[in-house]
Amino acid sequence: MRPFTNLITYDKALKIVISKTPSINDTETIPITAANGRVCAESVVSNMNVPPFDRAAEDGYAVRAEDTFGAGTYSPVKLKLVGKINTGEWKNIVIKEGECVQVATGAIIPNGANAVVRVEDTEMDGEYVNVYRPVHPGFDIAPAGEDIQKGDTVIEQGALLTPARIGVLAAIGLSEVNVYKKPRIAIVPTGDELTEPGKPLKLGKIYDVNTYTIAAVVMENGGEPVIMPYARDDVDAVKNSLLEALSSADMVVFSGGSSVGDRDVLIDVVSSLGTIEFHGVAIKPGKPTWFALVDGKPVLGLPGFPTSCLSDAYLFLVPALRKMAHLPPREWKTVRVKMGRRITSTLGRRQFFTVRIENDVAQPVYKTSGAITSLARADGFIIIPENVDLVEKGEEVTVYMWR
Amino acid sequence: MRPFTNLITYDKALKIVISKTPSINDTETIPITAANGRVCAESVVSNMNVPPFDRAAEDGYAVRAEDTFGAGTYSPVKLKLVGKINTGEWKNIVIKEGECVQVATGAIIPNGANAVVRVEDTEMDGEYVNVYRPVHPGFDIAPAGEDIQKGDTVIEQGALLTPARIGVLAAIGLSEVNVYKKPRIAIVPTGDELTEPGKPLKLGKIYDVNTYTIAAVVMENGGEPVIMPYARDDVDAVKNSLLEALSSADMVVFSGGSSVGDRDVLIDVVSSLGTIEFHGVAIKPGKPTWFALVDGKPVLGLPGFPTSCLSDAYLFLVPALRKMAHLPPREWKTVRVKMGRRITSTLGRRQFFTVRIENDVAQPVYKTSGAITSLARADGFIIIPENVDLVEKGEEVTVYMWR
Repeated sequence: MRPFTNLITYDKALKIVISKTPSINDTETIPITAANGRVCAESVVSNMNVPPFDRAAEDGYAVRAEDTFGAGTYSPVKLKLVGKINTGEWKNIVIKEGECVQVATGAIIPNGANAVVRVEDTEMDGEYVNVYRPVHPGFDIAPAGEDIQKGDTVIEQGALLTPARIGVLAAIGLSEVNVYKKPRIAIVPTGDELTEPGKPLKLGKIYDVNTYTIAAVVMENGGEPVIMPYARDDVDAVKNSLLEALSSADMVVFSGGSSVGDRDVLIDVVSSLGTIEFHGVAIKPGKPTWFALVDGKPVLGLPGFPTSCLSDAYLFLVPALRKMAHLPPREWKTVRVKMGRRITSTLGRRQFFTVRIENDVAQPVYKTSGAITSLARADGFIIIPENVDLVEKGEEVTVYMWR
Repeated sequence: MRPFTNLITYDKALKIVISKTPSINDTETIPITAANGRVCAESVVSNMNVPPFDRAAEDGYAVRAEDTFGAGTYSPVKLKLVGKINTGEWKNIVIKEGECVQVATGAIIPNGANAVVRVEDTEMDGEYVNVYRPVHPGFDIAPAGEDIQKGDTVIEQGALLTPARIGVLAAIGLSEVNVYKKPRIAIVPTGDELTEPGKPLKLGKIYDVNTYTIAAVVMENGGEPVIMPYARDDVDAVKNSLLEALSSADMVVFSGGSSVGDRDVLIDVVSSLGTIEFHGVAIKPGKPTWFALVDGKPVLGLPGFPTSCLSDAYLFLVPALRKMAHLPPREWKTVRVKMGRRITSTLGRRQFFTVRIENDVAQPVYKTSGAITSLARADGFIIIPENVDLVEKGEEVTVYMWR
């Protein structure tokens, strides 16, 4: 057995993971209907004005403002009604002196007109309209380009596409947008005991859990999981798996096979192909975590125990993946509650202690480090710093919510 | 023009929308790799034990505990090594008195053995193993069903499927899960001026924005948008659109066409087919919002102006949709910042004022109610209650973040 010789702190380990993980700059063009949550890969410049034409801001009559000067409640100006323009219509009308055109909100303002008189300030009078209020040029007209000018940058490179920003793309007529591709994260299950869910279970085998928790974490953080075949616990099998994973993905994640027992070949294989950046972190769970670069691509080793693996995925994989995907760091929802039981920790190791919140009290859910059920029951975790060895019952703690 | 006769409060309107909107109970079976964020439609009961067999909790030797009694640092017990079981293997070995079998962590415990002696408490001695420490029955064995018992309910009906819960499904061998179907939300763009993005724009027309913002909101809140063809602004066209939308979706959302101008036919059509629950809400923006039930399905009318439409979608559509989808209410991320400018509001109307956060100060972004660019620049909104008509510059406000 090879002991862990030098554990590094979580902060150091995370810094290494983030600094060595490259952002993925490959792009793809997708329909705006599929773009929510994606990251814009280039600044978007409008090649049109919005609105594209002068339009009526209210229902009323398009007029020459100068024709209305002097109009008043008792001295209306009489204008000849020469047409009607509905919203969405175009009519080849030119307004001349003494004329007006009925317009609906949003309708194009006909040539010759420079203002809109609201319908409530007028009265129909046969072929004429009596105008009871003067308007100045530009009144109740939304001029072309008022909202977006041709040439304006409307979305910055790197912006997260939200419903609102997708609306902006639509407004300037774009049905597609260029976004960063989702990083492809290869997940390599290791361990001769693992069986794929849905297949019959032979004696001595267990179902694979980590592939599915990791895949879900990858999907909810902007990545595309690539589930690789099971790697047998021998040098050639692991080597081939790693090489195949590297050829089809931007990052490779292993789970299991990272302890220091005599049958763990993973670290040897990874060392032979690349650089191990660290192996062993002063955290609980997650001590056997390792991180390497192979062919410039990040390779992350997560623990085999399901709860440890998921905890570690949030701690290391999520920040790395979100950097790759050009996404902002994950924002943890936190709640402050009292601890329901006294818990101890080891000085020198940062503990991420899984809890469930019951009646505003944080209760431990961790039965054993392999426990699957604690996953289903857990709401999140509390952090016990390296210099704290005891959290008293009733002490106030911050819970970082998994969801 | 028909004025709004009776505006109802936002709280009343929302209560109506939520109470009249049914949850959708149709279900579908999907792979667990696609289940993240979905809602479990039935309680999941394990039909196996996890672990499925007694297994070694440490690397060491499976023994009969009683054979180790009396062992000590200077008086080892000598056991005959009769085999080795790796993790994932099964071997037909039965341990008899005075025998042991080498086991790896996670390996199945052979018949006859009832404890594991850790490797560090032993020494190899030819075909024998010297045991330097006694163990009690059950020591370092994870018994079958320790984690999950056959018959245990592991996921409750209605539970949101998170990475952790997906791991639990995998652990009990399930590759698929039964979830509630995503509610189908038909989006019907109305307005003769609307053009689909990507198509050439004729004079007098503008690009449709609301369909795309609404579709994105629907997707990020667990629904499936169904984009309908444009409905022309006449009774038959709107009626046919509504009937077609109802036949293919669980809810119908209109945008635009809800003001009280003379060309708005939507309300008349909806009234003729179903019940208008309210029309006109004491909020800004969003006053012309309406809600109806047609054939028992909710039909929601959002304003046509893009910023108003999106604001309203968050206020009414999101709560309704999440109820339909069995999802918990949306959790707003909020931040407390100072207001960057004095803003006024109308007494008696609740204002949802769109802001951008710059250097920890909330700045207005709303140019005009049609402004598209404010969408791209906005971070969220502040709420100005019905009884407040002024927010002073420098006053502390809560911003509800759109993202």
